[in-house]
Amino acid sequence: MKTQVCIIGAGPAGLLLGHLLRAEGIECIVLERQTGDYVLGRIRAGVLEQITVSLMERLGLDARLKAEGLPHDGFNLANGERLIRIDIAALTGKHVVVYGQTELTRDLMAATEERGLEVIYGATDAAVHDIDSDAPYVTFGKDGGEQRIDARFIVGCDGFHGPSRQSILSRGAEYHREYPFGWLGILADVPPCNHELIYANHERGFALASMRSETRSRYYIDVPLTEKVEDWPDERIWDELSIRLGPEAAANITRGPSLEKSIAPLRSYVFAPMRAGSLLLCGDAAHIVPPTGAKGLNLAASDVHYAAEALRAFFKGYEADAIAGYSDKALARVWKAERFSWSLTRLMHRFPEDGPFERAMQVAELDYIASSKAAQTSIAENYVGLPV
Amino acid sequence: MKTQVCIIGAGPAGLLLGHLLRAEGIECIVLERQTGDYVLGRIRAGVLEQITVSLMERLGLDARLKAEGLPHDGFNLANGERLIRIDIAALTGKHVVVYGQTELTRDLMAATEERGLEVIYGATDAAVHDIDSDAPYVTFGKDGGEQRIDARFIVGCDGFHGPSRQSILSRGAEYHREYPFGWLGILADVPPCNHELIYANHERGFALASMRSETRSRYYIDVPLTEKVEDWPDERIWDELSIRLGPEAAANITRGPSLEKSIAPLRSYVFAPMRAGSLLLCGDAAHIVPPTGAKGLNLAASDVHYAAEALRAFFKGYEADAIAGYSDKALARVWKAERFSWSLTRLMHRFPEDGPFERAMQVAELDYIASSKAAQTSIAENYVGLPV
Repeated sequence: MKTQVCIIGAGPAGLLLGHLLRAEGIECIVLERQTGDYVLGRIRAGVLEQITVSLMERLGLDARLKAEGLPHDGFNLANGERLIRIDIAALTGKHVVVYGQTELTRDLMAATEERGLEVIYGATDAAVHDIDSDAPYVTFGKDGGEQRIDARFIVGCDGFHGPSRQSILSRGAEYHREYPFGWLGILADVPPCNHELIYANHERGFALASMRSETRSRYYIDVPLTEKVEDWPDERIWDELSIRLGPEAAANITRGPSLEKSIAPLRSYVFAPMRAGSLLLCGDAAHIVPPTGAKGLNLAASDVHYAAEALRAFFKGYEADAIAGYSDKALARVWKAERFSWSLTRLMHRFPEDGPFERAMQVAELDYIASSKAAQTSIAENYVGLPV
Repeated sequence: MKTQVCIIGAGPAGLLLGHLLRAEGIECIVLERQTGDYVLGRIRAGVLEQITVSLMERLGLDARLKAEGLPHDGFNLANGERLIRIDIAALTGKHVVVYGQTELTRDLMAATEERGLEVIYGATDAAVHDIDSDAPYVTFGKDGGEQRIDARFIVGCDGFHGPSRQSILSRGAEYHREYPFGWLGILADVPPCNHELIYANHERGFALASMRSETRSRYYIDVPLTEKVEDWPDERIWDELSIRLGPEAAANITRGPSLEKSIAPLRSYVFAPMRAGSLLLCGDAAHIVPPTGAKGLNLAASDVHYAAEALRAFFKGYEADAIAGYSDKALARVWKAERFSWSLTRLMHRFPEDGPFERAMQVAELDYIASSKAAQTSIAENYVGLPV
């Protein structure tokens, strides 16, 4: 097969890029190792920045997002006692939309046929070749045989464990940090305890009250990585949430049986540059943020935006070095989002190496934020997403 | 001897408090272990916040400060390449004044006789007694004999090594952090390389370009605590400064022989509460900040402001629990200034435990600050001093 752009990975980044390229009349094929149902089975967060919403709008695929997404004008930090509301609408004139990543993926997936976006599921063992040439190609297994797609560019939207970054590891630098705790999440069909998110730093640890809809709640607490989900029956999680979120939120928690329960590690990671020859990386293939602040999907969306712009400029002949500029443009925003996610993670979690002074600094920072419009504005502008 | 308030320590905090009390007609005596000349021999920084300037104004002791102090409308952060100017005047409507702590102390000292503020120099081995009663007293050695001052309150302005905090250590909590580097400072009679301060985070380490006047410069670089001043001949310091401050500043450095050269350790420390019975603590007696951001003297001034208000309210009979409220009021501001000093120290220095990711976070934070008015405003409002 031959195409202009071969995209590896049909998660939200790959599908979004595919649709954006098709909308420009650029040929592309998306390869996905798993089945579509498997992709939709992944449970992920869903707080969308304006950049992500506006890409869906531009594609005309935002009908359900508009109907079912919950616009949020603020969120809360909590120090174990009181809530500190960050009024993002008043401070930035923008808002975020709560809409599950799974739903976004479903919307993108539903439109592939109508928009003529070819997605090949069950494409195993994808490998990139000749990326230093103008004629790179991807090989993969399908139905027992090996297939090949020739393209002008390959875009790796294949996540942290995919083959794209692996193939160019020696051609860039890795920046990473592991965190000494994980997020134990519980999903339940109960109304949220608060109409906006609450990020709490209680002296017992972190907690997050979030939601998927007005009837489905998602809560998290941080636990040492040595903990097992089996050690956390539902009631123990609800008890811990009631303490950590503080009395105001606790009074409104509705308990219910867990639909899903898991522990996810936290990691900060950047691979730079995000391009080698004819191979571009987008989203988790190039970087991971800890989930604090919900930047992961939105950062993938901004990468896709820059990649689509660069590919459009290249294929339309507008800008000869558009592709060469992709990595720097994408990374400028990536680094700032990495900084925000890292900084909010540090502010809201207890670290084993922290003593009373470091704890006092967290308390002082929350007090300062509560008292300063400038500090609130800084958090708010990062939360809604820095300018693209 | 008998007085209303016995102040231990005749540094800027003790003298400022003494003058403020005298201005209210409250009797006080200041005890100082050293001679006046010794006190004036201490070299300290001097970037004054509005709170400090306004206390001198209120006392009518600001003539020389007004004439010789250098008002600064901004300062700079540097990332080894470019300067990021923080326009504090435009962002906050306020400014700071560069005026040496020694000069401030000299002004306060010069007015003691005229204002009837009694200062006893050479008062050794001061010790506080009966602070849980309404009749505490201080004993000290003077001219070979022991003397005693009875007072209603004792205020410890006797610094980190003084007897006041030592005497109540078991009655509060200590919060502290040591830093794995010191500041190597050089003082020279050369014009400053820039009319405003420059805090630089170069990949080789921290540097600060500061000044005492238009003809006297003060520079610092951070060095491991194991370094000795003897290992740093003047030229080596000038060479290092020229690299770390970046090309723009380096081009304007005038070199000259050092008048003074020393390595000072950095420490964050808070003792809480800042009062036990009839003993109040002000300034370094209760807390230490790393010098990044120049908060030390200004924090002493705001403590003194709160202490003077509380003592005034008590002695005028305005507010029965004014003294009881002192510690909480002072600490609310202390913690925020500790946070700012700690946070600016972390942003601008290399830490031995930091890897490439942490370095990248510093670079990203400087880039973010350069691009965000909210982030600059947050830094500026802390730099000029949060509201009292």
